[in-house]
Formats: sequence, C-alpha cells, structure tokens
Amino acid sequence: MDAPAFTFRPIGTVRSPYLKRMDAPHQATVVAGTESGVPAEATLELDPALPETVLRDLEGFERLWLIFVFHASEGWVPLVQPPRGPRGKRGVLATRSPHRPNAIGLSCVELVAVEGHTLHLRGVDLLDGTPVLDVKPYVPYADAFPGARAGWIDAVDAATGAHSAPGPKKSSRPATS
Amino acid sequence: MDAPAFTFRPIGTVRSPYLKRMDAPHQATVVAGTESGVPAEATLELDPALPETVLRDLEGFERLWLIFVFHASEGWVPLVQPPRGPRGKRGVLATRSPHRPNAIGLSCVELVAVEGHTLHLRGVDLLDGTPVLDVKPYVPYADAFPGARAGWIDAVDAATGAHSAPGPKKSSRPATS
Repeated sequence: MDAPAFTFRPIGTVRSPYLKRMDAPHQATVVAGTESGVPAEATLELDPALPETVLRDLEGFERLWLIFVFHASEGWVPLVQPPRGPRGKRGVLATRSPHRPNAIGLSCVELVAVEGHTLHLRGVDLLDGTPVLDVKPYVPYADAFPGARAGWIDAVDAATGAHSAPGPKKSSRPATS
Repeated sequence: MDAPAFTFRPIGTVRSPYLKRMDAPHQATVVAGTESGVPAEATLELDPALPETVLRDLEGFERLWLIFVFHASEGWVPLVQPPRGPRGKRGVLATRSPHRPNAIGLSCVELVAVEGHTLHLRGVDLLDGTPVLDVKPYVPYADAFPGARAGWIDAVDAATGAHSAPGPKKSSRPATS
C-alpha cells in the first residue's frame, strides 16, 4: 500500500472520573445503566494555544462527537472477544474495540456548557487523560439512523436482552458518598 | 500543550465518482437529494496487507462509520462560512468543515456488501482517493439520537427549510447517460 502516514496533534484532553480501563463503561450511553445511575461528568480541556473562536456556535448543540485516541490500548488484533454476548471472536472492524489497526475511538457525548477553553460534558465513557483529535457537532440528519440493522449486536440483544454490554466495574461516585 | 502527536497509516482508500471537491456533496445523506437522485456507489479498498478476518461479522451492519482524512484540505481556519444558511462565519468546531485543526472527517455510509478486501458502499460523500483511518459498525443505541438539538443548523433549517445544504454541483451519472 502506497498510502502515506498522517500525523495529528491532539486539540485537547479529557478529564474524567475514570482512571483505569476497568473503571470505564464500554459506550457513552451505557453510563446511564451503571451502578451509580448518574452519567459521569467530565470535561474536555481544549489546547490553550487554540483560539477560543473555534468553539463559537457550539453551545447550541445537545451532543458532540469526540474523535479520540485509545491511548491505553496496547496494539491491535484481527479478532476480538467483545464484552457483550456469548463467547466468540468478532472481526475487530465489526466491533468498537480499542484493539484496532488505528487506535482511534468515536464517542457521542452530551454537551452541558462551554466555558472558555473548557467543554463540560455528560455521558462520557473515556479515561482521564484521553487525547482528543477532533470535536464535531452531532447533526441528526447526517448521524441519526435509529432503525439501522446492527448485525451480531442485534442478534445478541435478541437473545439476552437489549443493551447487554456490561457497565463499569464500579461507580464513578466518590467512595465516601 | 505537552500532548504528543499520533501517527496513523490509512487502513484503506475510497474509490468514488467524485474526483474534485466541487463534485462532492457536503454530507453523505444529502446525496439522495442531488440532481441524479441516485446515492453514489463507491467502494472502500482495504489495505491488502490487512488480514481479511478484520472484516468478519461486518456484513450484518446496515451502516458504517468511516473516519477519514480530508486529504484535499489545505490548512485550517478558526472560523468558516458553512455551505448552508445565510452569510455568517461559524466556529470551525461547530461545523463539519474540512478546514479543521486536524483534517479528520466522519461519515455514516450504507454498507451494501463485503467482498474480500472490498467494501461496497452507498451514500458516500467522499472524494476518490480519500484515505480511511478506521471503519466502525453503526450501532443505534450508541449513535442514534434523532431528537438531539442542533443549534445553528436547526435555526437555519427553521428559516429556510430542512436539509438546506447544497448538493453536488453536478450529477454523478456518466455524462453520456
């Protein structure tokens, strides 16, 4: 393959209550079903070198896409065992696993507020320190297809109940609460 | 900012009827409203060095995310004039413009078939030769939020009619048809 490589510098960093991979849920929207039941509050701290104007007009959007780096992922494999469903490996590109050829993740999060270079977010499933490559507004006409068939995930849900992916191993509430 | 840079090698290349930026629609789902009315057929040619097993279980998904490089984009700007709506610049991160700090794009396309290392796609808004960094299955429970507020885009649609982004300048049909 003659395609060149591309280098990207993160535009910001996630600050979240999830310090280790075991603590983090497997998809942003699964957070609501976790032990605490409270979607985690997190922030995206934009690179202070970027002008604040890049965020103008963003606050009217209810949701954002974060395109980020699975920075804790250690290499990739062609077949993975997903957290949901019966034992059985799936092609890594048919999953959202971190163990992909390019360790790039995609997560739809709720935007709570924009304050200077800080984006306040809800429903975040990302580890603290996650490098973010891009932020895009969620636009339903381009992004929302609620009826789209979802192959093996539909099959697992039909067999074991919807949204059967496990949540985080422990609550994101402080241990003292 | 002390964040390191990340380098990615494309996992594949798009083959599409769109040879120049002027020919390409602005979002995959806008294609249906173009002059020809036929969503463009395109393929993703996976890097032959990748094992075919990475694609196992993918064919059951109706839609895929493509995370790609805006390889024809020439640098970025903090504020952009979107193709839709009245004159007025928006913060680049509140748009899906190619002129972003990291020239990374996100597009939801229809998967028609998987044939060896070739993914047959429909509803593609990408230029021929677009380098693809990742393919992910579209999973409605994580990705579909049809009622999400969309800030300035909702406001423009309310004023000028839904889905007001212009389509491609010319049909993707052969000139002889």
